[in-house]
Amino acid sequence: MGELTSLRDTVRQFVEERDWDQFHTPKNLSAALMVEAAELLEHFQWLARGDAAELGDAKLEQVRHEMADVLVYLIRLADKLDVDLHAAVLEKMVLNRAKYPADKVRGDARKYDEYPQD
Amino acid sequence: MGELTSLRDTVRQFVEERDWDQFHTPKNLSAALMVEAAELLEHFQWLARGDAAELGDAKLEQVRHEMADVLVYLIRLADKLDVDLHAAVLEKMVLNRAKYPADKVRGDARKYDEYPQD
Amino acid sequence: MGELTSLRDTVRQFVEERDWDQFHTPKNLSAALMVEAAELLEHFQWLARGDAAELGDAKLEQVRHEMADVLVYLIRLADKLDVDLHAAVLEKMVLNRAKYPADKVRGDARKYDEYPQD
Amino acid sequence: MGELTSLRDTVRQFVEERDWDQFHTPKNLSAALMVEAAELLEHFQWLARGDAAELGDAKLEQVRHEMADVLVYLIRLADKLDVDLHAAVLEKMVLNRAKYPADKVRGDARKYDEYPQD
Repeated sequence: MGELTSLRDTVRQFVEERDWDQFHTPKNLSAALMVEAAELLEHFQWLARGDAAELGDAKLEQVRHEMADVLVYLIRLADKLDVDLHAAVLEKMVLNRAKYPADKVRGDARKYDEYPQD
Repeated sequence: MGELTSLRDTVRQFVEERDWDQFHTPKNLSAALMVEAAELLEHFQWLARGDAAELGDAKLEQVRHEMADVLVYLIRLADKLDVDLHAAVLEKMVLNRAKYPADKVRGDARKYDEYPQD
Repeated sequence: MGELTSLRDTVRQFVEERDWDQFHTPKNLSAALMVEAAELLEHFQWLARGDAAELGDAKLEQVRHEMADVLVYLIRLADKLDVDLHAAVLEKMVLNRAKYPADKVRGDARKYDEYPQD
Repeated sequence: MGELTSLRDTVRQFVEERDWDQFHTPKNLSAALMVEAAELLEHFQWLARGDAAELGDAKLEQVRHEMADVLVYLIRLADKLDVDLHAAVLEKMVLNRAKYPADKVRGDARKYDEYPQD
């Protein structure tokens, strides 16, 4: 079993034991994911770059936990919508390669910025 | 090799081929992750629940791509900060189990809400 | 003096007294605004509608403070970019009226959803 | 009539003409506000500081519109929850002054960062 499937089962069991599935509409989960993403960003907002050295060990630990929270909600949302996250990323990377040809966008900040990252 | 490690390598190669690593400070990546999370939420904001049936096939496909974008930036951020996402989720789930004991929070929306999801 | 100009001056003085202008790049301020918007959303994420009655007095007070935080950062960002917020809203409402003609989109959730709120 | 009250009436009329009030639960409005805040952040995410000069005129115009969108949703949310935004900011600034005494936090990035901006 792949890592993401295994994590999905861990999260699913956690939710079932608490009878929280009733709150987990995709709409609510995407809002929760966003809130966690903001808590992650909060650690970086006044830093210059946010590298591990600038964060320091204590903050890095908190960042690690916020990253886990984001992934937990993403995995949970994928479970509710029957999305295979691993396949979705591979598929999206194919689209990204077509959209941003390496020889055209290489190292070009302006081009990088022009091509929106959707 | 685990799925997440394999995806990390795919994303890393994509970035290297475009010489985009220079833009990928953890701060910028966490902002980009947030923007993708908002694009995901945008699909749900006026819906009642956002289930697959309410979304419809075309929107579900877009949602799938936004979910992939979120995971790509999360994987990239983990790569830059040397975070093992799989281990981080397992560790966080242990903390969550201690924080939200199943017998105390079971099916209780108020309690659920009181215990912040950090 | 208009309310927004007066609030701008209040916030400006607060920042100057603390010598915090150095942290207030537009980039940092837009990230901070986003984080406050997420703290606002957090209060609503597991609620059905989030009306005043569902929130209750204590939560409504917190919501009020988060709304103030969002406005403070928006006013500060406008100050740094020399944007007249009052004029910007009036101008945007003209664009919105042209984009969503009342007789075409009236009460239509699908149409409402199709026309993105950018 | 104050600027914010006048803008509230403009937005209210726009919504009523389109019969969109039915979609405007506080929960939905806070999600919409967040999405607009992310569209604002998107313009800055790969920039160094995001000053007017770095943005350029065309992007600054877009940023101005996103800022207007954020304020429109904030004003609309305040209308639905009967919040006086002007009074809320004045009240919050009193709390902020007590929380961040100028002589203790002056120009100190570390202190600034320690005191969370909630």
